[in-house]
Amino acid sequence: MKAALFERMLAERAAKRAVTLVTRLADGVQVLVIGDEVVGELDLGPEQMEEIRRRLRSDKSGVLESSEGALFARCYAQAPRMVIVGAVHITQALAPMAAMAGFEVVVVDPRRAFATAERLPGVTVTTEWPDEALARIGLDAQTAVVTLSHDPKLDDPALIAALQSPCFYIGALGSSRTHAKRVARLTEAGLAAALPRIHAPVGLDLGGRSPAEIAVSVLAQVLQEKYRT
Amino acid sequence: MKAALFERMLAERAAKRAVTLVTRLADGVQVLVIGDEVVGELDLGPEQMEEIRRRLRSDKSGVLESSEGALFARCYAQAPRMVIVGAVHITQALAPMAAMAGFEVVVVDPRRAFATAERLPGVTVTTEWPDEALARIGLDAQTAVVTLSHDPKLDDPALIAALQSPCFYIGALGSSRTHAKRVARLTEAGLAAALPRIHAPVGLDLGGRSPAEIAVSVLAQVLQEKYRT
Repeated sequence: MKAALFERMLAERAAKRAVTLVTRLADGVQVLVIGDEVVGELDLGPEQMEEIRRRLRSDKSGVLESSEGALFARCYAQAPRMVIVGAVHITQALAPMAAMAGFEVVVVDPRRAFATAERLPGVTVTTEWPDEALARIGLDAQTAVVTLSHDPKLDDPALIAALQSPCFYIGALGSSRTHAKRVARLTEAGLAAALPRIHAPVGLDLGGRSPAEIAVSVLAQVLQEKYRT
Repeated sequence: MKAALFERMLAERAAKRAVTLVTRLADGVQVLVIGDEVVGELDLGPEQMEEIRRRLRSDKSGVLESSEGALFARCYAQAPRMVIVGAVHITQALAPMAAMAGFEVVVVDPRRAFATAERLPGVTVTTEWPDEALARIGLDAQTAVVTLSHDPKLDDPALIAALQSPCFYIGALGSSRTHAKRVARLTEAGLAAALPRIHAPVGLDLGGRSPAEIAVSVLAQVLQEKYRT
């Protein structure tokens, strides 16, 4: 590997960013893929980039075909992240379950009475406003965003940030009536084209209605999207 | 309510058995449904019994129609139970997640090195053999049975007990090859007709492969069966 590429890879991994090292098998020419950025001299088309993103999301290194011939994509994934907006009852079940399933979990809720370490032991909790928190955290293709606060003042800014990011999952709690209003507001904000990315009603339809049962349905749907081929 | 019926209901609930009190709305005549037993003087057909079982499973009281006219079924469900055979890695994630989702969880593993309180904090663990444990616990229509030990000496007796019971969910870990062998053994044991009740491969197909991800897929499938209409 060229020294410059190697150093860049080390720097990205030190910064906890996921990268994929792509090697053309015919001659060993390599590029580093970081988000949408390609560092190096292989020409990757949109299809290859999509395939690389998919592989990185499920952390599956392997060979892919391209007009450049066979490429080997070595994924260096980071732990997937889940950003949950609203420190509500569902969150009290979802946060520990997601942590158990390998996610770095961040709970965002500026309402200090809700966002306490006692209610959410072992999870990162921040009382920043969602737009500030999400800008600081940075939503990459390994991040899932779930809004559960039931308050548009908190949920909407998070959804706007998520819809403008490559995060792999967006889910929003709320009845179909609530969601219709949300769609209207986000359409007004110019995000109409991206709205189908929102999973609403949130979670797989398993039938349960308790907060913990909804948490299971959300986590199951997040995993399903993570591994979607 | 007649005194005898009331006393029987109290006794059943004290014994932690789920019951449904069915009242004919036209005249207030009542029966108590306990598993397949009907105590009282209403004539309930197989369809009503099935509907009552379904309602009890998801703890949804409500009105049902019958040849006797409208009936009101008041469900007194117990906490659903999950019996997990094998104190393996998946169990270490599944047991606490299921407990969080409202299940009374019992882990059965006679291998004392596996079935320790340290590996499974906050969960009932027994080192009885599965057939003894399951006979003692009693598998009712509110119970899910999941075999994860990978050892037919442990899994098979549990599956045999489960297949002979009205438990609402049966899931067994193992590749399709492992399951084919299991099907052959259980067919030899005379259980061919009941084998379609076993969910194998176990869990919803979410794509994840880590123990905790499999735990989420199993719990999601158990909830889906619990609320199946």
